[in-house]
Amino acid sequence: MTQDTRTRMLEKTATLLQHRGYYGTSLSDILSASAAPRGSLYFHFPGGKDQLVIEATRAAAELATGELRHLLDTMERPAAAVRAYAEGAAHLMRETDFTFGCPVAPVILDAAGNVPELAELCRATIEGWQELMRDAFARAGLAPHRTAPLALLAVAAIEGALIIARANRDATPLEAVGAELEAMIEAAFEWDLSGSRST
Amino acid sequence: MTQDTRTRMLEKTATLLQHRGYYGTSLSDILSASAAPRGSLYFHFPGGKDQLVIEATRAAAELATGELRHLLDTMERPAAAVRAYAEGAAHLMRETDFTFGCPVAPVILDAAGNVPELAELCRATIEGWQELMRDAFARAGLAPHRTAPLALLAVAAIEGALIIARANRDATPLEAVGAELEAMIEAAFEWDLSGSRST
Repeated sequence: MTQDTRTRMLEKTATLLQHRGYYGTSLSDILSASAAPRGSLYFHFPGGKDQLVIEATRAAAELATGELRHLLDTMERPAAAVRAYAEGAAHLMRETDFTFGCPVAPVILDAAGNVPELAELCRATIEGWQELMRDAFARAGLAPHRTAPLALLAVAAIEGALIIARANRDATPLEAVGAELEAMIEAAFEWDLSGSRST
Repeated sequence: MTQDTRTRMLEKTATLLQHRGYYGTSLSDILSASAAPRGSLYFHFPGGKDQLVIEATRAAAELATGELRHLLDTMERPAAAVRAYAEGAAHLMRETDFTFGCPVAPVILDAAGNVPELAELCRATIEGWQELMRDAFARAGLAPHRTAPLALLAVAAIEGALIIARANRDATPLEAVGAELEAMIEAAFEWDLSGSRST
């Protein structure tokens, strides 16, 4: 029972953060969404709102990271895995009436609430996604100098597409960016773009 | 003098929105940053905070749109203009100690503060950037079915790179994404990626 309240508070906090950001997520919002009495905040999270926000962000980021890792590990082509990740996000946006979003982008754009540990968590999460893609591209045989730029482009484009989809209340841009990234990553395996530029 | 206070309030509001989002930008922050007395809000903006935020967002969005249009109109290759736009943003981030950012993304991720006019302004701004790129790509002779996907990818990737640069307090990712987009857009002019996929 106690555990349930704690888990519910973490989940609702993550949802609120994705939908309204760090500053848009008040303690009253969290308690009301979790149907939790005010005393439960410091009982479950002695560090207060910052601890709750950090733990909620970490849990939501780990879900996203786990999903990306799973797709890259189990699908034959990393390009298809990147597209599948974008399509999974599109599906979640539709399912949640477009409140789902990146677990770290809204926090980053709120200057991480001026909480250094939260800022570092967000930075490391985005770095981790790029690392997963770089490693998968390398395992699949992509030229070493192409893995980092393509991983950065893919993470950036998916982050941006989540914003565009939210703005339009339409997940199609996320699917379109997924398709475009798949084609571009596939093409990078076939020829070296930066090589072709220097000719 | 009166005009000065109004302009200063708009500029400071835009800066705060980019750095901390809609909910992170309080009236006290705005008045304090603008060195404006409390009475000046309703004197200059009878519609209150929402009017101020809408006008500030519109003005900052028009600056960004004007810069993108200028680059696409004056540079010979649209691919180079897209890269120059990303590099200009990287320069502004460094100049402002990484408080500069997209004028609409933080507002979008704050659910546009639940203000429909603000949500529509953000949506239309992002659509406008894509339209400028689509038109420039078309004028330069890109195959019609490639203009929209590439414009969407470019806007999404720059939006995402702004977030990654902010998270790292390092504008290098923005420059790297600009270089990558330039190469990919150039490549699209040389061959049709989606055509190559279907072979």
